[in-house]
Amino acid sequence: MSDREADLSAESPAKGVPPAPAHAVYSNPNGMPYADGKNLHMDLGRGDINNRIVTVGTASRAEKVASFFDKITSRVASGRGFLTINGIYRDTPVSVVAIGMGPSMMDFFVRETRAVTDGPIVCARFGTCGGITEKAITGAVVVAKGGSAFVNRNPDAFVYCYDGSAPLPENAAKKYNMFDVAPSDPRLSAALEEELSNALHGDAQLMEGRKKGDLVICGTNVTAESFYSSQGRLDPQFEDGNEGLIEQVCARYPNAMTMEMETFQLLHLAKCSKQPFYASAAAIVVANRTINTTVEGDRLERVESLGARAVLHAVATFKI
Amino acid sequence: MSDREADLSAESPAKGVPPAPAHAVYSNPNGMPYADGKNLHMDLGRGDINNRIVTVGTASRAEKVASFFDKITSRVASGRGFLTINGIYRDTPVSVVAIGMGPSMMDFFVRETRAVTDGPIVCARFGTCGGITEKAITGAVVVAKGGSAFVNRNPDAFVYCYDGSAPLPENAAKKYNMFDVAPSDPRLSAALEEELSNALHGDAQLMEGRKKGDLVICGTNVTAESFYSSQGRLDPQFEDGNEGLIEQVCARYPNAMTMEMETFQLLHLAKCSKQPFYASAAAIVVANRTINTTVEGDRLERVESLGARAVLHAVATFKI
Repeated sequence: MSDREADLSAESPAKGVPPAPAHAVYSNPNGMPYADGKNLHMDLGRGDINNRIVTVGTASRAEKVASFFDKITSRVASGRGFLTINGIYRDTPVSVVAIGMGPSMMDFFVRETRAVTDGPIVCARFGTCGGITEKAITGAVVVAKGGSAFVNRNPDAFVYCYDGSAPLPENAAKKYNMFDVAPSDPRLSAALEEELSNALHGDAQLMEGRKKGDLVICGTNVTAESFYSSQGRLDPQFEDGNEGLIEQVCARYPNAMTMEMETFQLLHLAKCSKQPFYASAAAIVVANRTINTTVEGDRLERVESLGARAVLHAVATFKI
Repeated sequence: MSDREADLSAESPAKGVPPAPAHAVYSNPNGMPYADGKNLHMDLGRGDINNRIVTVGTASRAEKVASFFDKITSRVASGRGFLTINGIYRDTPVSVVAIGMGPSMMDFFVRETRAVTDGPIVCARFGTCGGITEKAITGAVVVAKGGSAFVNRNPDAFVYCYDGSAPLPENAAKKYNMFDVAPSDPRLSAALEEELSNALHGDAQLMEGRKKGDLVICGTNVTAESFYSSQGRLDPQFEDGNEGLIEQVCARYPNAMTMEMETFQLLHLAKCSKQPFYASAAAIVVANRTINTTVEGDRLERVESLGARAVLHAVATFKI
């Protein structure tokens, strides 16, 4: 891959970035900052990450993905919570990155990765989520073939909590904002669906009353910036005004299957990227919010491992 | 402290929460979930965190705060990136929690902490920030006496990137939303200002041309959900439309001094809390965006240490 060779041979951390002044903790405070040639939050310079990436939440899931590399070539754990593992899968350089939780962490990942790579990026998220329809059974994997919507809290609807004034009448201020669906890449979504279906086919045969299509389903994801308020979880300790929010979410996005906290930011920024950026996502359903169930630990372990390999294969073999 | 003793003697992880079904990874998917008696992201049960808390971003800063404890009593590192260190400072139980980055992580911290404690909470954030006025010089500490505003990206202003349609005319859709200032607790802010001023007084005398009031200043903080787009950093790789955003932020919030990514969520939720929750924040200026400078490494180290002790003292001695 000539792009990658060019990256590795580059002398400066990023094209056009001035060197850091002596002793300053970093350079370029109004753009993409670097310290000692590495970007500020992921600790990556050019050549420290590949253009084909599986991104996950936790370090333990990143290790699961990396266990399917033919060879691990390097590993960078940043002081800001990112873990990047680079390796080779069937002769193709790939990376897996654990980013933690929330849209902000996805924003760091997408931008700091883009800043130190050249050429097209192929990136699939492999995460966990809550199912918001009965179809999204615990232990299934949902591919965001329908893209991802975004829901966040409108803090100005709660200013009555600041000054002790009376709350606005119901519906006078929208407490949660719902944004348009950011599409996923159709080819990468199709590849994820195919690889995951193949990986989990045997399991469906073994599970009483389940067939192949039950364990890998496609739909629209909904990202929220809170695990609690904007995902409709009831927290008696805070003024959230989020009763019925899941129903409103399902009404606005008829194909909504899952909620989690990162996918929208990946798909949104991939579409806002000036260079080609192929992105999609798959998430394991750990809880079904509709029927109030959670996945068994051994089932989660198994789907994580089978799914990790399938998602890695889809990313590594995607035709650019 | 009878509240804390009650916490420690409690048999269940949280009052009113049903036990997890056997083998399920967690219980209560529509409220505050628990696994093996610990909440899901911070790994805390009742008695695992105190009501007086200093919250920071990185684990290394948490260790600096904890170095001033008279005794460390316990330490919990969660698989989701939180580090909680409990200890005693002058006979008072205190905690320091490293939460990582972004409003979502602050949301987890506030809600999961509140869920396993009883009675009033006193919480100060001690973070880092960028200065957006000349007055907020690098190496100074800014106390959010004027509270914190919030700025986030309006993704629907970028739907033209999804479908290849023409961008809307300038100002037809607001690309960034600006929300009302959430106030900080006046007494806790005053205590932070006093303790930090005392701690850094000697340093100001040693720095040429600086006086006491230059190193500890008060103002309004502005939290953004991105380090990049909604903080007005220019990233040529993405459609951000954020030229001039800092100027718009300063026009909307005339007392704005700093930008970072967590304080608003702390202050906002403290005000939305049904039980008393005293919150404020102080942040070290690591970069001045106006004059394009960054702090020297040794200066940052020194302010971190002096400031950590001052913030801890303010939290531990705050009268509830």
